Amino acid sequence: MAREAWAKWGEQDERGALNQIGAEEVKRAFGLVRNGKVMSLAQPLSAETPVPGHRAPMQHFMGRDGGDYAAGGKRPGGFQFAEDTVIMAMHFGTHIDALCHAWYDDKLYNGFPSNGTRSTTGAARCGVEKMGSIIGRGVLLDLVALKGQPLGLGEAVNREMIEHVKVEKGDIVLIRTGWLETKLSSPDYYDGEPGIDVGAARWLAERGVAAVGADNFAVEPIPFPPEKVFPVHQCLIRDFGIPLIEGLVLAPLAEAGASSFLFIAAPLPIRGATGSPLVPLAVL
Amino acid sequence: MAREAWAKWGEQDERGALNQIGAEEVKRAFGLVRNGKVMSLAQPLSAETPVPGHRAPMQHFMGRDGGDYAAGGKRPGGFQFAEDTVIMAMHFGTHIDALCHAWYDDKLYNGFPSNGTRSTTGAARCGVEKMGSIIGRGVLLDLVALKGQPLGLGEAVNREMIEHVKVEKGDIVLIRTGWLETKLSSPDYYDGEPGIDVGAARWLAERGVAAVGADNFAVEPIPFPPEKVFPVHQCLIRDFGIPLIEGLVLAPLAEAGASSFLFIAAPLPIRGATGSPLVPLAVL
Amino acid sequence: MAREAWAKWGEQDERGALNQIGAEEVKRAFGLVRNGKVMSLAQPLSAETPVPGHRAPMQHFMGRDGGDYAAGGKRPGGFQFAEDTVIMAMHFGTHIDALCHAWYDDKLYNGFPSNGTRSTTGAARCGVEKMGSIIGRGVLLDLVALKGQPLGLGEAVNREMIEHVKVEKGDIVLIRTGWLETKLSSPDYYDGEPGIDVGAARWLAERGVAAVGADNFAVEPIPFPPEKVFPVHQCLIRDFGIPLIEGLVLAPLAEAGASSFLFIAAPLPIRGATGSPLVPLAVL
Amino acid sequence: MAREAWAKWGEQDERGALNQIGAEEVKRAFGLVRNGKVMSLAQPLSAETPVPGHRAPMQHFMGRDGGDYAAGGKRPGGFQFAEDTVIMAMHFGTHIDALCHAWYDDKLYNGFPSNGTRSTTGAARCGVEKMGSIIGRGVLLDLVALKGQPLGLGEAVNREMIEHVKVEKGDIVLIRTGWLETKLSSPDYYDGEPGIDVGAARWLAERGVAAVGADNFAVEPIPFPPEKVFPVHQCLIRDFGIPLIEGLVLAPLAEAGASSFLFIAAPLPIRGATGSPLVPLAVL
Repeated sequence: MAREAWAKWGEQDERGALNQIGAEEVKRAFGLVRNGKVMSLAQPLSAETPVPGHRAPMQHFMGRDGGDYAAGGKRPGGFQFAEDTVIMAMHFGTHIDALCHAWYDDKLYNGFPSNGTRSTTGAARCGVEKMGSIIGRGVLLDLVALKGQPLGLGEAVNREMIEHVKVEKGDIVLIRTGWLETKLSSPDYYDGEPGIDVGAARWLAERGVAAVGADNFAVEPIPFPPEKVFPVHQCLIRDFGIPLIEGLVLAPLAEAGASSFLFIAAPLPIRGATGSPLVPLAVL
Repeated sequence: MAREAWAKWGEQDERGALNQIGAEEVKRAFGLVRNGKVMSLAQPLSAETPVPGHRAPMQHFMGRDGGDYAAGGKRPGGFQFAEDTVIMAMHFGTHIDALCHAWYDDKLYNGFPSNGTRSTTGAARCGVEKMGSIIGRGVLLDLVALKGQPLGLGEAVNREMIEHVKVEKGDIVLIRTGWLETKLSSPDYYDGEPGIDVGAARWLAERGVAAVGADNFAVEPIPFPPEKVFPVHQCLIRDFGIPLIEGLVLAPLAEAGASSFLFIAAPLPIRGATGSPLVPLAVL
Repeated sequence: MAREAWAKWGEQDERGALNQIGAEEVKRAFGLVRNGKVMSLAQPLSAETPVPGHRAPMQHFMGRDGGDYAAGGKRPGGFQFAEDTVIMAMHFGTHIDALCHAWYDDKLYNGFPSNGTRSTTGAARCGVEKMGSIIGRGVLLDLVALKGQPLGLGEAVNREMIEHVKVEKGDIVLIRTGWLETKLSSPDYYDGEPGIDVGAARWLAERGVAAVGADNFAVEPIPFPPEKVFPVHQCLIRDFGIPLIEGLVLAPLAEAGASSFLFIAAPLPIRGATGSPLVPLAVL
Repeated sequence: MAREAWAKWGEQDERGALNQIGAEEVKRAFGLVRNGKVMSLAQPLSAETPVPGHRAPMQHFMGRDGGDYAAGGKRPGGFQFAEDTVIMAMHFGTHIDALCHAWYDDKLYNGFPSNGTRSTTGAARCGVEKMGSIIGRGVLLDLVALKGQPLGLGEAVNREMIEHVKVEKGDIVLIRTGWLETKLSSPDYYDGEPGIDVGAARWLAERGVAAVGADNFAVEPIPFPPEKVFPVHQCLIRDFGIPLIEGLVLAPLAEAGASSFLFIAAPLPIRGATGSPLVPLAVL
């Protein structure tokens, strides 16, 4: 692996491949809108939303609710209200990996030292608050349609299988493996998954994509190739500065026959966070 | 007050005035895009983001970070990563009030009983997950420009002051009072604010707006009028089913000279939540 | 069931049967100390500590740690430190049920309305902060020894099986069923348990015990008797004002041959909480 | 400073000076009980409990409460219950500092590397779960009585001022400065405090005390001496392995005229935590 895109957008850059989207790409993307139908690609979020074994489920607490009034709570001026608090991992449900999320050799994308990511401060560099919003051309790479069925556990998608797709600079490429739609409600959802291998990932990166997403939890095949651990994360996030979007709901988009569309997403600008729950929208 | 918009979109409707935005309004809104410049209207989020006295600040915890590797953490296959968790009130920073957030007489918008909002379940009706995304025409109502200076504590904006603005069905109206830009970093930000009074709110509601936002924490003037408590919340959210967007950053939008623009926002679909942190985008 | 002990210690009393322990009982209990050996009856607490399905596991976050310094954190005056935060259910691990934890007919122990226990305030009455510390004579009721083996799922212990034990006013009675020691590390720990039935519970209550504990998660047998749900909780906590201590580690105490001993415990005085993690001590 | 007590109780020891309390000291302490009066030395805990600026207040959330039933919640078998969750810093209210809490030169007490304290695991060494319970002779060192008034901000208590007190091996020495009783409800409680200086701390350590507590937030005077930062923490916790107990409520103990008494405390055994909220008891 190598420092593929380092310094490409300046030595202080923290947005990586999102820089591939300029005003031109944004305008072109708006030009894709046909009927104005808006689709959310996000999972619903609750204490039941699946999480991997090492993360805690979301907790949602009411600080005030209708029950308080039923129990006799006062209503000054007639006013009643409810409010609430959540405890939520940032890599939860449908979410984006910020460029500080994954690395190797103690260096993040663009060479920033991983020592800058600490308990006391979060990520000093490449935190999710540096990403800004993502508006561009979305491209659905529908491997379920290609293969005629959902991909299986550990199944790797290589470059040959995807290079027929027209991918352009600044595109947000969304890969449908069928994993989420067939496995999310199953206890083995997080045991492994199909996904793109490093060769396919590099091919996308070399096309100049701005972001890569998938309908699984890690974009890449698990179990990993021998002696590798999250090699696609290492390659795309750290070498190329390409953020990953995970846990996407893509079946309805495929059913709608959308192959390219306006893609819109805005991570929560949490200072120093390594990712954010995301509600990506596709506009047809 | 009265049940102004109840049953207007069916007895089971939980989206309220967001129904004012149909495919036609979405397409019209996309037609407003000129140069493709995207502006976020959201505050940055951190433990320093101001909260009112009765709410706790955000907490952000790293579950794994660069320090763990500096201290000798293992790197199977070279892979290193960081992850984190937040504890966050839903009415925090820039956020949207779901239709279950405020009510009176034990009935939410559309007559749903407030008894359905409980500690055990969150809001059974009108939770934020029912809102869907919001894409439409944004209209900036710049009271700072109108008055020549930021509005003061408790200053009420009435109907006469805003009825010169062209507001149409499905618009998202954003009101700039100057409060956030002048007071957010001050300890008295939450002590009160200027905002629209019930007359102005009703006028907007009767024009068919889909949502109302402001650059303060509650849209309406505080201190309240005598014997009233959050009367605009009661009117807009409960009677008209109009969600409020609070804590907006509007000064840059005003500086950019935008009076109408494409507005995009997507609340986190947290089941039964009374609101959501929001990253609204304006596209010029 | 009935209001067995209501008003026994005054109409405003919130400590219930803990009032059975007076200075005399405390002094008598100290007289039980023989060799000064102190045993903790508490489970270790961590993210791995088992929780029932409807509760979230503990989360433990470091706000500052050794890794921060390894990554270059400053050390003014040489000083280094670490600190942390937990998110923890009150009925977690080894814990005590406050008198506001369980009730029926909308009335807590001593007739306090359950409407006083709300999201906004916690429990106005009978919260764990009203209990104070518990120091008295502990009595081990070792059903494993009595039966020659651990009790099985749903096995009920009735009055006849325990009335041979000498129980006195103010005693804290700890019931060893063997459930925790055989099942805690098993996924079916929370699927059910053996325990004392209502008859046995009443017999203890009528002897004047101050508290009842057990080495399982609910003191009483689960599955419940037909058409009953937590009948022992209803009887002991609400009718008699007797707090329950759950999740006790009792095997080592039994191995030490202790049948009566000095018992010491001090709940966290969290205002309005319905219980508290507890570290009960037995001194032999 | 130096490694005063390292290896004194073995190279793997993680309990430090608590080892000064053996069965003999425990029995002697029980011999101090006169009238059996039990006093809690702990602050009440709630969202209002003061915290220093860099820590978040406690949050207490009801997961189920009386309001849920008032709003129509079901009562299978008549059973009703309430439960709750807290988010709480470990160094909160009255609490104990574990031996992993403070150090210098990257080495904890007994030479354990501070690199073992990480986000992923908490403290591998000297976590609060290694402390066990603390039962021994408590000694009240009442500086308010000595001086005739509460000590002032930054006032240092030196060795000469305390060496008249009889302190023995295994004692838990509690220092009353008057700070908590006069300042806890004031906004400047955490701005500084009086306390013992390093000379006084060393004198206590050399007497063989098991733990040192105080009625302030850090035991030692703040502002610190020139170029020092928490020197007493560095000396007592790291060099001598003596845990500190902070935020004690000592005025009632002084009023009761207790100079020595049975002291009992049991930290929550949270794996890898750097401290624990504590409910210390004094028995007279």
